[in-house]
Amino acid sequence: MDQLRSALPESLGVGKIHHVAVIVRDLEAALDLYRDKLGLRMEAVMPIPSDGVTIGFLPVGEVKIELVQPNDETTGAARFLESKGEGFHHVCFEVPNIQVALDRLAADGLQLIDTVARKGAEGPVAFIHPKSCHGVLIELIEAPGGPAWATLGY
Amino acid sequence: MDQLRSALPESLGVGKIHHVAVIVRDLEAALDLYRDKLGLRMEAVMPIPSDGVTIGFLPVGEVKIELVQPNDETTGAARFLESKGEGFHHVCFEVPNIQVALDRLAADGLQLIDTVARKGAEGPVAFIHPKSCHGVLIELIEAPGGPAWATLGY
Repeated sequence: MDQLRSALPESLGVGKIHHVAVIVRDLEAALDLYRDKLGLRMEAVMPIPSDGVTIGFLPVGEVKIELVQPNDETTGAARFLESKGEGFHHVCFEVPNIQVALDRLAADGLQLIDTVARKGAEGPVAFIHPKSCHGVLIELIEAPGGPAWATLGY
Repeated sequence: MDQLRSALPESLGVGKIHHVAVIVRDLEAALDLYRDKLGLRMEAVMPIPSDGVTIGFLPVGEVKIELVQPNDETTGAARFLESKGEGFHHVCFEVPNIQVALDRLAADGLQLIDTVARKGAEGPVAFIHPKSCHGVLIELIEAPGGPAWATLGY
């Protein structure tokens, strides 16, 4: 493992926070706050049938607020909502090469939910378990043009 | 109230997310993740005796991660840690004029924790109650050069 670790770059090269995700019961009610009262711009609302959620993205500077409304009781997002209520769900950091980042974090002993990237709505993504991150669910997304974009067929 | 509301600007002018705050039990252990494994740059660690916490700021793009370690059992941060464990605490949006933003949100019916700005470590700040924000504790901070900087004696 030490040999693997030493072969990996010293830094993940995190460039920015890509988004902060919030679980909400009712997307329209949450838009009343974020769009109509806080005045953020609504970029897109899209259902993600594979995850059983509808999401809304509101850019603010270089980051987006992602509102996540569970549509299906069996999903992780719905279980989160039932057990913890509405609130913060995860933070997503952008990296230049997601597989290099995942290999590095695995070598560092972090518990990965996804050991390889999967296709997200906005690019290749993977999650790191909150047990390894002081209670914070962390997502990584590969910056546009990174190698996983071609691999995953964007 | 309608008259007050109509006299206020249509948008709060939120420019960016200033920081995302995370409550941690042990700042050094959390730095092992954010600084040493995720590779974020450590900007500053500072005790805030008035709040009974020590905070660490790690910039990532235009945003900062704020790590908050409670030092005193009687503080809100310590009660949060005991009841919910480590994890997300609040998100802070930067606005050009914090008093205008607070007046507008009050006129919109939001429950404010601070109806006027108080002196924060990085500028004039105020909190909005999570009951009005779908479970998310929202902080506002005034951008450098705004009118509350002079009022609060920065």
